[in-house]
Parts: sequence; C-alpha cells; structure tokens
Amino acid sequence: MKSSLPSFQGAVCPVPLPHRENIMIGHGSGGKMSRDLIARVFVPAFDNEALNAGDDSGVVTIEGSRLAISTDSHVVWPLFFPGGDIGRLAVCGTVNDVAMMGAIPLYLSAGFILEEGLEIQILERIIASMQTAADEAGISIIAGDTKVVQKNKADGLYINTTGIGMISPHVQISGSHAKAGDLVLLSGPIGDHGIAVLGARGDLGFTSEIESDIAPLNHLVRSMLQASPEIHTLRDPTRGGLATTLNEIAIQSQVGIHIQEDRIPIRLSVAAACEMLGFDPLYIANEGKLVAFVAPQAAERVLEAMQRERYGKEAVIIGEVRSDPAGRVLLHTTLGSTRIVDIPSGELLPRIC
Amino acid sequence: MKSSLPSFQGAVCPVPLPHRENIMIGHGSGGKMSRDLIARVFVPAFDNEALNAGDDSGVVTIEGSRLAISTDSHVVWPLFFPGGDIGRLAVCGTVNDVAMMGAIPLYLSAGFILEEGLEIQILERIIASMQTAADEAGISIIAGDTKVVQKNKADGLYINTTGIGMISPHVQISGSHAKAGDLVLLSGPIGDHGIAVLGARGDLGFTSEIESDIAPLNHLVRSMLQASPEIHTLRDPTRGGLATTLNEIAIQSQVGIHIQEDRIPIRLSVAAACEMLGFDPLYIANEGKLVAFVAPQAAERVLEAMQRERYGKEAVIIGEVRSDPAGRVLLHTTLGSTRIVDIPSGELLPRIC
Repeated sequence: MKSSLPSFQGAVCPVPLPHRENIMIGHGSGGKMSRDLIARVFVPAFDNEALNAGDDSGVVTIEGSRLAISTDSHVVWPLFFPGGDIGRLAVCGTVNDVAMMGAIPLYLSAGFILEEGLEIQILERIIASMQTAADEAGISIIAGDTKVVQKNKADGLYINTTGIGMISPHVQISGSHAKAGDLVLLSGPIGDHGIAVLGARGDLGFTSEIESDIAPLNHLVRSMLQASPEIHTLRDPTRGGLATTLNEIAIQSQVGIHIQEDRIPIRLSVAAACEMLGFDPLYIANEGKLVAFVAPQAAERVLEAMQRERYGKEAVIIGEVRSDPAGRVLLHTTLGSTRIVDIPSGELLPRIC
Repeated sequence: MKSSLPSFQGAVCPVPLPHRENIMIGHGSGGKMSRDLIARVFVPAFDNEALNAGDDSGVVTIEGSRLAISTDSHVVWPLFFPGGDIGRLAVCGTVNDVAMMGAIPLYLSAGFILEEGLEIQILERIIASMQTAADEAGISIIAGDTKVVQKNKADGLYINTTGIGMISPHVQISGSHAKAGDLVLLSGPIGDHGIAVLGARGDLGFTSEIESDIAPLNHLVRSMLQASPEIHTLRDPTRGGLATTLNEIAIQSQVGIHIQEDRIPIRLSVAAACEMLGFDPLYIANEGKLVAFVAPQAAERVLEAMQRERYGKEAVIIGEVRSDPAGRVLLHTTLGSTRIVDIPSGELLPRIC
C-alpha cells in the first residue's frame, strides 16, 4: 500500500513540522503531513539503506536471495463495504506492496487487535475473507498474533499484515528508477475504493452501487514482467490517490511526470460522486490499481499483457516522463491548459485503508 | 512472544467455545480462551503447515534458506513503565520470538497505529527506544507504516512488529521437540515484567522499584547454540507466564514436564507483590527470559554458556522432562507434595504486552 510509507517511503527531505505537537488525523493521510512526520520522527531514528530507499517494501538480501518486506496496519471503517472488507484489504494491500517491487509475494503474517465486545461471527467472516484473498493471491498466512483491548480502545478490529516476497535477479524496480522517455501506464479506472468506503459510511448523501476495486495485483505484475523486464517503477495509488503516488515517484526519480487528463479512466458513477462532494478523483484511494513506468519501446507489449489479465483489462497509457520539471507532476487538461498536480497536505478521507 | 500465538501457537485441539459470542478481554490472555479462539477461528481458515506447527515463529524455506517469521502487536498500557516502554517491548518481543526458533533475527518491520492527540514528543521517545533496542539486538527496522485513528479509537499508540531471521541448517528447535530426559533450563527470575507494569498502573497499592526484564535474547540464544546443538526447545514465557509456556510445550511435545518449586528463581520484591495481590508468579509475564529444553548430556555446558551472558547470569536448571503424564506440567513443591500446574482460563493481567 503505497503512500502508507512501507519502508517509510516518500520521506525524502526532512521539513520541520509546523507548530503541531500532537498527532492529528492528517498525519495518517499519506500526504504532506505524513511525509513530514516520517521525515522528522522515523527516518532519522531508524536510518538504514532499505528504509531510506522510500519504496513500497524494504529490500534486503539474505544468503543471496533478494527479499521484499512490507508492512501495513489496516484501520478502515466500516469493516465491510461494497466490494470488500478489512480482511480482503489487509491481504491485498500487503500483497500489492510486495508486488510493487516486482517481487513474488510468498508469505504473510497477520496481527489482530480486537476490541472487547466484537462479535466473533464478524471476526470469522473477516478471517474467511482473508483466506479467500490469500488463495487468490497464492500466498500463505504463516504467523499470527491476537491482542484484545478494552471497549473504546479500538474500533472493532485492526489488522496488521506483513508480507515477504522474492525478487528475481533480473528485476530492478524502484520509485527512483523512472526515466525521461518512460511511458506511464495505469491499470484501470481510479477512485472506486475511496468512494465505495464513503458510500458505506453513508457520507455520499445518496445510495451508490460503486464497489471497491480491492484486488491482489501480483499475478498482473508477473505477467507484465514476463512481457518485458524494462519496467522501471511500479506503485499502487492507495492513500492519497494517483496524484500523491505520481508526486512521490516524481520526487524519488527527480523527473517531471506529464499526464493527459482525457486519458485517465474514471467511472461515470465515481466522477459524479466526486463532483457532488467536491473531491478530485486524482486524490481518491484505490486498492486494486497500479501505475507502471515503462521504457517506451516496451510499453505497448506491457500494456497488452496487462489487458489480458483480469485486473488489467482497462489498462491505458496516461502520460510520459520528461526531465522537467524535476520532482513535479503536470496535468495537461482536456481544455488544453496545464496545471501542477500537488500532494495534498492533510487528510481527505480518514481511515480509508 | 510466546503465548501471543505467533504462528498461532498452542492451537492444538479445537475445543468448542462456550456460549460467549463476543470477544472478551480473556481472549487476549494467552490462556485457554485465547487457545480456543485460535483453534476455532484462525487455524481452520488459514490452515498451513508453518502456522499449524504452533511455534513462536512460522518457519518457511525460500531458495534453500530456512527463515523464521514472527509477528506481534503491542498494546501494553501504560506506554512507559520501570525498565522499559512499548517501543523496547515491540522490538524485543519479536526479536525474541524469532530467536526462540534458534534463528538469527535480521530485520524487523514496524506498523504504528497512532491515536489522534498523541504527543509527538512521546512518539519520538518511543521511536528512539525502539532504535536503542534494535541496536542492542543488532537488527535493522527496514519497513514501516503509520496510521492515525480518531481520539478514543486507540490508546496512545499500538505497535506491530514483524521479524525475520535465518535458521542455520543444523538447528532443529520446536515446541514439539522436547524429549523425556531433557533438562529444563530457565534463564533467570520470573515475574518482573508483569509486576513492573502493574506497578506503573498504580495497581500494586504501594510503590515498587521492580523493573521490567525486557531484553533482546538473541545473543544469549546464539551463545547457547554455540555451546551445544542439542537444544530441543526454546520459548520465552511472556503472556501467561512460565506456567502457560510449559503447558504449551508439554502439549506440543506430548511429554510430562516436572519442575521443582524451590529451584524457580523469583525476586523477593516480586514474590512479596504477588503474595499481597494473590497472584501466582508462575503466571506472571516475562519479557526477557527463556526456557530451554536440553539433552541431559549437554545441559551443564549450555547452562554455563548462559551464565556467561548478560541476560543469562541467573540461569538455573528447574526440572526435567518425563514421558508421563503426557501433556501435563507437574510442580514438585517445597513441602514435598506434587500439584498439576494448569493453563489459566481467561485474563490475569490485561494489556501487559
């Protein structure tokens, strides 16, 4: 799960926090406040190469094998929403973070914090959903832990998953590897997850049939890598949406990312919901999408491979990488103008994952 | 952290839960209620060899390397207590679970759930404490995640850590490997952690100087394994205390464990606190102790190696393994009588780790 700072990603330049000396909801947004907190508190203390790389997983080498390790705590509310639940999210989120390093996810651990009073039947449904997602991804949940806290010290349950995957020797994928000339591929329409969760909260003000896109993307990634090794960067645009993910990559790789507004797929229902609520879909979370930065000569081949996969059928090329403006994302709008797409500061939609 | 069911340990026989259809504090105790919940809900769903083994870590093989993976969510309250804090606990707890497989812990991930309103200075102190513990253990924290939940949806912060370690080819340690004839070694006095946390809560009714024993035990384990490969079982008696840990091993290995009451070291201050509160120190949590089951011919050598280490100075032999009564722990008391030491049902001391 991208902007969740697995491997504390995005923590590049330690900007002093403003005079906010208490944790605020915005510190969990994946946006500027998250980045500042990470840069100030976590990175200086834990300082090491794998963490500082700022990717979706930390990459380490054990006896010659390169392993990607990623962790995510899931606090989504409500626990169930159209298209998924916290269990499916907990499995897919971490599977995807591992896959975004080009790794083959193998094993997951699962740590549960249960609130006193949680119905055991609800727990059983969530566990079953986790195993269904694990089966689909082809991974095993091999270690677990359960803690119980008193009523009102959690919200039903929270689930941490940590994943481990193996990276083939020829794969070299990182948020810092995007290059001028690369084409930017997006695996399908954006914004479904965030709007689905809002709908389940009753926050839309109207009923909606929008389902979350939660899905394990590891099989999609495998097919893409089989099509070409010239994939430089992969990332799933979760918290903070496509805009935040592209900004992270622009900063990590010090390139300018130019995207075409009219090429970005958005379902009509999602676009309508965003318009009514005043949200920009570029900032809405996804849980079953990825962006890929691919060498131009390989882009068509990779795109076709994506379109043959269940979770890549609607894949498109949405833009390209240039040298300038380094560290920036530019949106070329339908009207012919160009605007900077920035990272949001605080929280758009709390507890979306 | 033993009875925290890393790898959902101890989940041997699925006993139907009584008519309790909601999660209760006791389900997090590490005792019978925890075991029943795991056996009913988690193990049938996640069913796989590594998990079902019921050890402190799941053991998997990746490209010929045997890796131990363990996860633990830490919800201890209060966040700071004599001898430690939630940060030191989060690092040592998982380092120890990995080490209890005879593995060399290498890397840790850390997932934070922060409550809105938490002072950032407190977070900084905890992070610094984590890094100090990581330095002492010689491991790196290579992946992280931060989520923020609204006020009253957590209690300051919760920390999940997941650890990965490498197991040497000659090491074969498991809770199911204890054998008749083995001697039972304990690395030092019991009960310090639980009583220290109670003291910090003001629950003792008197001031106490008792400090938690939280410590990384991986260097101790390495020295023990250098002294002899004939170590069959290692486990750290955390939640549920020494009594619960020994019961788990008795069940996993289907042996009778006979311990001598007068050989079990307990600090006077801890014994006094337990007596005043009506607690049996056998059930009080430790966070820097281990029990080892060692072939009789190697026991003295291993004991001496322990006593040379910082966290094993007070190591002693507390008993032995016999064939009977299989699955039971017997305490031979100072008065010459013998009693069965059972697993507690529910919660003695909630949120001790």
